[in-house]
Amino acid sequence: MIIFSGDFDKAMAALTLANGAAGNGMEVKIFFTFWGINLLRRKIIYSNQPLENLFKLMMPISPERIGLSKMNFLGIGPWLMKKLIRQKDGQTAMDLFQMAQERNVQFIACEASLKLLGIQPEELIEYHNLEIAGVDKFLENATQSQISLFI
Amino acid sequence: MIIFSGDFDKAMAALTLANGAAGNGMEVKIFFTFWGINLLRRKIIYSNQPLENLFKLMMPISPERIGLSKMNFLGIGPWLMKKLIRQKDGQTAMDLFQMAQERNVQFIACEASLKLLGIQPEELIEYHNLEIAGVDKFLENATQSQISLFI
Amino acid sequence: MIIFSGDFDKAMAALTLANGAAGNGMEVKIFFTFWGINLLRRKIIYSNQPLENLFKLMMPISPERIGLSKMNFLGIGPWLMKKLIRQKDGQTAMDLFQMAQERNVQFIACEASLKLLGIQPEELIEYHNLEIAGVDKFLENATQSQISLFI
Repeated sequence: MIIFSGDFDKAMAALTLANGAAGNGMEVKIFFTFWGINLLRRKIIYSNQPLENLFKLMMPISPERIGLSKMNFLGIGPWLMKKLIRQKDGQTAMDLFQMAQERNVQFIACEASLKLLGIQPEELIEYHNLEIAGVDKFLENATQSQISLFI
Repeated sequence: MIIFSGDFDKAMAALTLANGAAGNGMEVKIFFTFWGINLLRRKIIYSNQPLENLFKLMMPISPERIGLSKMNFLGIGPWLMKKLIRQKDGQTAMDLFQMAQERNVQFIACEASLKLLGIQPEELIEYHNLEIAGVDKFLENATQSQISLFI
Repeated sequence: MIIFSGDFDKAMAALTLANGAAGNGMEVKIFFTFWGINLLRRKIIYSNQPLENLFKLMMPISPERIGLSKMNFLGIGPWLMKKLIRQKDGQTAMDLFQMAQERNVQFIACEASLKLLGIQPEELIEYHNLEIAGVDKFLENATQSQISLFI
């Protein structure tokens, strides 16, 4: 059980753990909250609230776009990092993100975060194992799971 | 059991989890460490140590003042975020912080952090369920609790 | 069981917890991943891959060099923090790092991170209880441990 809230590098860590666990037959759930929601975003549907739209516009969409928590250098860091990953035939955050879906890791989008940022379900990726739920759902899962990490 | 070390957005997550858990009748303890201590600060009592005072002055006081871990933009980010929250009639970090106290969530201030930053108990908020304790206390609690998150 | 990915202040927290737990006779393992690897680095052996070398060069080496997650101010923050710690006769990240080794805390370097960043075992500190392992090893440990934190 992983609760995730953000960066490229942390997404790598969270998804690597999730895929490893799923690969070992563990049931894995990732609870995407706050900035983490951006990984699940597919497109922008603008609302009539300028402030909401500003955030939607400024926030990165999909694992392709998110920045590094460190050494981001206005996006150069992540770009170099992806270049390095490709040199090593390693997996980018996007590869890991897709593998997680292949391994049927459950994605839970934090309801409060969606509401706050004004993101509609239609703006999220299409994935059969994507659920929208609140903090109670997280707590219910967390109390039942062996490992819970806030990444 | 939550150990918390800092940002506006993470404070939102930590407090939302804490309030949700407390609302479900769970016993919740938040261990405030390092930057997290700033949420508990009420006022500044300057000491005769200039360096200590510099930190006290530079660090934000109360959940009203802390910044975002991302998109902070010299404080504009948090300001817009608060504006957005109000537009939605949502709860600010301060609302959640007060609710946590209403729900009697235990606050534990990390002794080492206080000592390091030279913060005296008098500089912290007045809350009957606020305790000052060290790492041993945290470990004792963590080993007994169902969920422990470092946020 | 701690999984660690980075900053000076978080290193302080992680190492303080680890030392406290080890001091209480708990078996402690720190899994260093991504930026966290930098704490274990001792020297740079340049490869023939410029990009790899660029990262090696840009990333800090040892707990002495890493920055603060907040108020870093191009390195002034950590310098002031270390100054403050010394004023208090407190322990710097380096002190805590060495104490962890004295208390025989197990260090595990994330294999994937090493591979990605092109860091060779020879570039890491010499410590009998330092192991290089992958995510499966982490999951195996985490499922068996009382507390798992991602710091």
